[in-house]
Amino acid sequence: MTDHLESGHDKAAVAILGLGPMGRVLAEVYVDRGHPTTVWNRTAAKAGPLVARGARLAASVDEAVAAADVTIVCLNDYASTARVLRPVGEGLRGRTVVNLTSGTPSEARETAAWMGERGARYLDGAIMVPPPLVGEPGSVFLYSGPREVFDEHRATLTGVGDPRYLGTSAELAVLYNTGLLEMMYATMNGWLHATALIDAADLPVGDFAELAFGWFVPMMFGPSTAGLAAALAEGSYPGDLGTLEMNVNALEHITRTSVEQGVPAEQPRLMLEIAERAVAQGRGGENYLAVYEVFK
Amino acid sequence: MTDHLESGHDKAAVAILGLGPMGRVLAEVYVDRGHPTTVWNRTAAKAGPLVARGARLAASVDEAVAAADVTIVCLNDYASTARVLRPVGEGLRGRTVVNLTSGTPSEARETAAWMGERGARYLDGAIMVPPPLVGEPGSVFLYSGPREVFDEHRATLTGVGDPRYLGTSAELAVLYNTGLLEMMYATMNGWLHATALIDAADLPVGDFAELAFGWFVPMMFGPSTAGLAAALAEGSYPGDLGTLEMNVNALEHITRTSVEQGVPAEQPRLMLEIAERAVAQGRGGENYLAVYEVFK
Ligand SMILES: [Ca+2]
Ligand SMILES: [Ca+2]
Repeated sequence: MTDHLESGHDKAAVAILGLGPMGRVLAEVYVDRGHPTTVWNRTAAKAGPLVARGARLAASVDEAVAAADVTIVCLNDYASTARVLRPVGEGLRGRTVVNLTSGTPSEARETAAWMGERGARYLDGAIMVPPPLVGEPGSVFLYSGPREVFDEHRATLTGVGDPRYLGTSAELAVLYNTGLLEMMYATMNGWLHATALIDAADLPVGDFAELAFGWFVPMMFGPSTAGLAAALAEGSYPGDLGTLEMNVNALEHITRTSVEQGVPAEQPRLMLEIAERAVAQGRGGENYLAVYEVFK
Repeated sequence: MTDHLESGHDKAAVAILGLGPMGRVLAEVYVDRGHPTTVWNRTAAKAGPLVARGARLAASVDEAVAAADVTIVCLNDYASTARVLRPVGEGLRGRTVVNLTSGTPSEARETAAWMGERGARYLDGAIMVPPPLVGEPGSVFLYSGPREVFDEHRATLTGVGDPRYLGTSAELAVLYNTGLLEMMYATMNGWLHATALIDAADLPVGDFAELAFGWFVPMMFGPSTAGLAAALAEGSYPGDLGTLEMNVNALEHITRTSVEQGVPAEQPRLMLEIAERAVAQGRGGENYLAVYEVFK
């Protein structure tokens, strides 16, 4: 039996703590989808437009938590989360708290432990889209924590996006979020820098983008690429199809071309230095994945 | 009428200059597919196994070029290319030369001009796969130079891979190759570094890879991503869906998490510094693509 059935509504009652750009849009989506929605913010004035839309403004955090089947925390950082929830004390016992605040893995672990001591049912989460995409199809939210808490509130969490459950360790959501964002920035920076090389030669950057994203990236990176993780876990990098020495040559070439084209070369140069460090570890005859040993 | 019909064979006669790992496999594939294949190498002994397989060893570069409908150059660098082909002189007139040697854009342009002065028909090319994949389906070779030269020899070029014609400027192949390789290394390094973060928390790196390559990368980067090139060409980066300031916060977070997890932080830190430079240019309210202005 889920909380929202107990509460007599057909939609779970939700509380949103923190009305920054992300908290505001979460509250809007829940109000618009018919969830009884309570909001709280340190500066209550921010709640005005939400109250006009149909949200209820809580006079205190205690009141917000007590009113909700699910309390969603969306504050600036974990320090604010602790400061805001500490006064609630025994009021957290048996309540469900979903923390979408950005933080580090150790902050997520500490907060999960702190919530556990107070008897709260805790999920840590991370939002993979900017505020304007919240509530749109395909907007992914990552969650970690007890499986049964996620399962019980899956329908409510689905209201604002596509929820992905990662596992029981609290830090999974924040850490996967961090890792995926790093991949996004790294891939973007690779493309942006490569495009600067193309542009410096007065060649068409649109044609390059079509080859890069229409063919190269999907050809190089897809579901089957995930299989490479086994090599990392085993530390096994056979160089049959190409060696790190060959990759060092290619990275030297990219760096040299950047200099020739008058494009800042730090980005390829750092990749070259990292590959050279792996070669210095005696891995020149292994394949490119051996640079993982430099990062580990 | 194509050269190989003039020569009376049903397959074009091919000469391979340079029998390093790539030149050798190109020669093997052409021999095995029934092309009359002449080989030349500075150290003739390297040709032994190819001659046993059915290739003809040329006594000189002149002889190799004269015997072939298409001369494929696969040497260490463009300096070697010039040194090897200079003595041929008038023997290059009307011949087709395809240069698969790695080099920089300016080297490709200079070589194309030099070939033009000698009356040779010249394509510059780049091989996107390691030697063991040459001749396999889907192995892409990039070509640039006169369209009619490419069209005339397309069937012959298809013998060793999937040929992609990029345009008339000689430097396109080498520059696109450089750019695509940079993207490959950047994306791999993003994943490898992110995986080190996951591993440092004793979390399963295979699960992360499945989310990263099974969902995140295909969702973030695909054919429609190519449309972003228009923004770069226009220098227009509206921050409606998210600002560079927010990305700087995310990159600070990734850097801080790396330090916390004991993983080398230079890679995210460089991306952070690049983004901060764009903010210092007054672009903090624009979107992430504005870092292109730092690279340009
Ligand atoms: Ca979180
Ligand atoms: Ca080339």
